[in-house]
Amino acid sequence: MSETPPLGEFGLIDWIRDRQAGAVGPRTILGIGDDCAVVRFADRADALATVDMLMDGRHFDLANDGAEAVGYKAMGVNVSDIAAMAGTPRFAVVAAALPRDVAVDVAKGLHEGLKRMADRFGIDLIGGDTNAWDGPLVVSVTLLGEPSPAGPIRRSGARVGDAIFVTGPLGGSFHHGRHLRPDPRVDEALALAAAAPIHAMIDLSDGLSSDLGHILKESGGLGATLDADSIPTHPDAIDQGRADGAPPLDHALNDGEDFELCLTVAPGDAEALLSAPPAGVRLYRVGTITDSPGILLRTADGRSTPIEARGFDHLARRPS
Amino acid sequence: MSETPPLGEFGLIDWIRDRQAGAVGPRTILGIGDDCAVVRFADRADALATVDMLMDGRHFDLANDGAEAVGYKAMGVNVSDIAAMAGTPRFAVVAAALPRDVAVDVAKGLHEGLKRMADRFGIDLIGGDTNAWDGPLVVSVTLLGEPSPAGPIRRSGARVGDAIFVTGPLGGSFHHGRHLRPDPRVDEALALAAAAPIHAMIDLSDGLSSDLGHILKESGGLGATLDADSIPTHPDAIDQGRADGAPPLDHALNDGEDFELCLTVAPGDAEALLSAPPAGVRLYRVGTITDSPGILLRTADGRSTPIEARGFDHLARRPS
Repeated sequence: MSETPPLGEFGLIDWIRDRQAGAVGPRTILGIGDDCAVVRFADRADALATVDMLMDGRHFDLANDGAEAVGYKAMGVNVSDIAAMAGTPRFAVVAAALPRDVAVDVAKGLHEGLKRMADRFGIDLIGGDTNAWDGPLVVSVTLLGEPSPAGPIRRSGARVGDAIFVTGPLGGSFHHGRHLRPDPRVDEALALAAAAPIHAMIDLSDGLSSDLGHILKESGGLGATLDADSIPTHPDAIDQGRADGAPPLDHALNDGEDFELCLTVAPGDAEALLSAPPAGVRLYRVGTITDSPGILLRTADGRSTPIEARGFDHLARRPS
Repeated sequence: MSETPPLGEFGLIDWIRDRQAGAVGPRTILGIGDDCAVVRFADRADALATVDMLMDGRHFDLANDGAEAVGYKAMGVNVSDIAAMAGTPRFAVVAAALPRDVAVDVAKGLHEGLKRMADRFGIDLIGGDTNAWDGPLVVSVTLLGEPSPAGPIRRSGARVGDAIFVTGPLGGSFHHGRHLRPDPRVDEALALAAAAPIHAMIDLSDGLSSDLGHILKESGGLGATLDADSIPTHPDAIDQGRADGAPPLDHALNDGEDFELCLTVAPGDAEALLSAPPAGVRLYRVGTITDSPGILLRTADGRSTPIEARGFDHLARRPS
């Protein structure tokens, strides 16, 4: 970059403010630079809020991935949470713990990536907090949004007999770095919510086995049967399977960070969505909600095998 | 605590949800446990947003201070930012990077402290993100609030001739751990905003020399004269001065994390406030806004000396 690196936090804040000048919309009454930001929600007072924190060595590898990619992902995973409720993302605040020796360069790279994802979805970056320390990079994004006219779509509305859909192929997102390039399904979620009553929805961040498990639990302890042959397996899952010997379907079920949507709808609506899907929306019907707790995987030979939630546990496993 | 420590992130989230059940108000439509929280702002669509991230070894010492104190401070410093705009804090989301070996215990302690401060101000804890890692504890709180009828009070409204007030004694907040026990001046800010037109306001987190500097810069490059004898020096600043040999006034000007308010008002309003301060509000008149950039310190001998902003630089110094 051609700018002279600013010195100290307030120089950095000025640099970010300059980069943001003109980059926020009319809903941001007051952006970066005061004690709080002031924002205006569009036509009602209801708001969505979500937060995700990413840490070096756990959700990314700063030395390999670079700060720009980290910023892009950090914003994207939050956008995906807003999409999961069929909301529209609006305003973001960011906090970062910056490795001291490279604090300013990392902050600038982060901001570039955060802004690139924010600009894709018309999100205003309204505030932040930056600190240098001797530890690894940590970045936390809080994203505010607005519900769609259909209202926020929760995890808890699944009903027995519902069809289960996902919006894209799954698995192996860490193998080629796809986890750094999320495509949050905001438009797809809005189109789906406008096309049919969505009973329950979640984004696939921890893995289908875990995330579908959240829907089942929140919907009162329901179960699901997944059809192994109908689960769209990403080419990355096949490559990853070649590398580590695990079946690609295991990767599709458990890797996480695909940032596709998983949703359930009534059987009749499922038929309608499959015969006339909203423009630009891919839909894969992967199974059915049942009244028997747990997830069964049905294979082509007719057998059904219980599967455990083996997706990302934020307190234990690290990404492969 | 008598609860069996839960295992894994979802056990922890359940524990926190249970603790929060009944602890959120009617403005929280949907709290912890879905992709986003859903909140309802009271009577208008404008919102305040602020974020602060605290890191072990920089803003606290987990081994000495304990997780509960860290949570209390992490929420408090954000409440202080809402106070600085004369807002009312409403909703908080929290993200934490937890040291792996003690992740669950630290998370529970953090939550206790966060909730204790939140309860003081009627704040709903609406969501969060927890991850374990091999690094030190990092906690980031994003706080949403509502402006008062007077509107958000910015840093940028100071005018030449304004009186400068602070709301309490300053300095030495790290010496006896007072920085862990902030008393955010929410009620005081609302009372002041109702009593007089506040031109500019900030909370004293980085130190008077730095924070007043922000007001001067944001108000178009104004200056200030501070009367050394009128600056209320905290007993902790005297103790700290005894320990390190620095003048207590230096600590009062530069230490930061007092979380008092600094505000400016027109001279006539200053007289009125001093003669009839709002109930429960302490006011110390420490100086005057001038049109000559920079801060001058006027001592009893009649001399005026320029002072530099030497408060907390988030990219450099660590707290003493």
